[in-house]
Amino acid sequence: MCPVIVNQLGPEIGKRLAAHPSRPVVVDDETPAAPWEVDPRADILLTRAFPAWRAAPMETPAGWPGNLRWVQTMSAGMDAYPKWMWSGTVVSSGRGVAAVPIAEYVMAAMLAREKRIESISAHAPEDWKEIKLGRLEGATLGLIGYGAIGRAIARRAAAFDMRILAVRRGPWTEQEASVEPCTLQDMIGQADHVVVALPSTAETHHIINASVLALAKPGLHLINVGRGDLVDQQALLAALNAGRVGFATLDVTDPEPLPAGHPLYNHPRARITPHISWSDPAFLERLGSKITINLDRYQARLPLFDVIEPGRDY
Amino acid sequence: MCPVIVNQLGPEIGKRLAAHPSRPVVVDDETPAAPWEVDPRADILLTRAFPAWRAAPMETPAGWPGNLRWVQTMSAGMDAYPKWMWSGTVVSSGRGVAAVPIAEYVMAAMLAREKRIESISAHAPEDWKEIKLGRLEGATLGLIGYGAIGRAIARRAAAFDMRILAVRRGPWTEQEASVEPCTLQDMIGQADHVVVALPSTAETHHIINASVLALAKPGLHLINVGRGDLVDQQALLAALNAGRVGFATLDVTDPEPLPAGHPLYNHPRARITPHISWSDPAFLERLGSKITINLDRYQARLPLFDVIEPGRDY
Repeated sequence: MCPVIVNQLGPEIGKRLAAHPSRPVVVDDETPAAPWEVDPRADILLTRAFPAWRAAPMETPAGWPGNLRWVQTMSAGMDAYPKWMWSGTVVSSGRGVAAVPIAEYVMAAMLAREKRIESISAHAPEDWKEIKLGRLEGATLGLIGYGAIGRAIARRAAAFDMRILAVRRGPWTEQEASVEPCTLQDMIGQADHVVVALPSTAETHHIINASVLALAKPGLHLINVGRGDLVDQQALLAALNAGRVGFATLDVTDPEPLPAGHPLYNHPRARITPHISWSDPAFLERLGSKITINLDRYQARLPLFDVIEPGRDY
Repeated sequence: MCPVIVNQLGPEIGKRLAAHPSRPVVVDDETPAAPWEVDPRADILLTRAFPAWRAAPMETPAGWPGNLRWVQTMSAGMDAYPKWMWSGTVVSSGRGVAAVPIAEYVMAAMLAREKRIESISAHAPEDWKEIKLGRLEGATLGLIGYGAIGRAIARRAAAFDMRILAVRRGPWTEQEASVEPCTLQDMIGQADHVVVALPSTAETHHIINASVLALAKPGLHLINVGRGDLVDQQALLAALNAGRVGFATLDVTDPEPLPAGHPLYNHPRARITPHISWSDPAFLERLGSKITINLDRYQARLPLFDVIEPGRDY
């Protein structure tokens, strides 16, 4: 039977799925008031982290999951959703869809720092003087989290001959020769650039805190592309003010946006960007491909890719 | 017999060579008024592109090359030296010594452009909005010149899954699978980023001119890390003003520095940097290694690496 898909991801994804060989019935619903209240005939829900999800009931609402046999979300992070979402049905995430643009953003941030990109432009003959630039070759990169994003960064950083240390919770089944497994405590004292690319869970909250920053190699460049609450911002501010952390590139903050006048906004040692590192002209194309692959597997009754594990919560 | 080396490259290089097993006599001469007037007992001259070289006689001066059997220069470009320099003795260049920092500068320039690095910072809550960013993956890179610099760029760009087209005069003995040989005319209409990394010779003067720019893919990002005179700056200015060229990153200009008030200095579509892309904390270490290898070969009477060919002039 043709699956019924409630599509909350917009018309481009809807059109692509409508052309799937399983001939699904696609019901577009791009601005749901309560995204969990779906047509009881639906088999599949495609959703994203609407603000409404943060206002969802604490307990499983009546009618969830109804007839739903699969929920697919847009991005990798599940912190915007209630945990009951994946207790009653299979939920798969958009893990990896934004790995490439985020890796490119991270490389841009590291190179901008080493090459002093915002201060080297010449505007007059007197600006023609020697400027000492840094380099990535031989510098040490510390990755906290080694999932799709961490691997995409490592591949690019390896081509620059960086030394790469990676901290992860999971097993090292996919380790490349260029990446050294490391503990957070061992890594933080050696790395010139540290990238936080973890999910936000109870375990990872404030993983970068005052005691970790106290061990940092002086001048560290900290880059957060995970979630704002992975970093204790007060501890980071203190470390930036003390000069222990040399620079922070934060694409995520806690909260988002930061309140007006927050000291990180115009800090000389910080660059705040408005949660845009995932932006990519090909984002919807990648997302459509990922959903299509899972829809193939759904039809073939094969296990879906990137299913959220209850308890682990990502 | 121990070779006598006149070292115009500073004390760090002098110290390193003094420790060479051939036990050379190193005569430091860091600020020569006429760098070609060397002690007639010298076997080897190490020199760099002092402004004085540009004021050298047009014809071979009396006494050149004297007893010199080898001249080693610091950088890859030979345009600052008179051609008689390499007609009477073996001259080798510093080719490749700056390839890595220049490749990193080029990657920084491409990423800064795609990721809009100078305009994405948030300074207030109202800056928290979606910003569309570009990407390197799938973009086309055109390399004009495929020597040490071009190869170092290609290796890094390949890790970003860029399509790489390369224009070179020499044979394709060292071609990687990721690089497609191309003519300038075919490349210029396809490339999103074009890097000029050629020597300045009579043949390459204004290789980027109005008729080449007329064929450019609209919005092209042109990066010059070779020499200023490879680009016809008036033609480039016209193409920038017309919007045909989207952006220019110029680490070299003609002349250097550009005169005060030059329209490229504050052009919204240009970034001028003061010939610093070679800057690298490890520059002298790399240069010392390169000279040491050639000194080993000199002692062993083997052909030196990176010898300038008369007629080709690089």
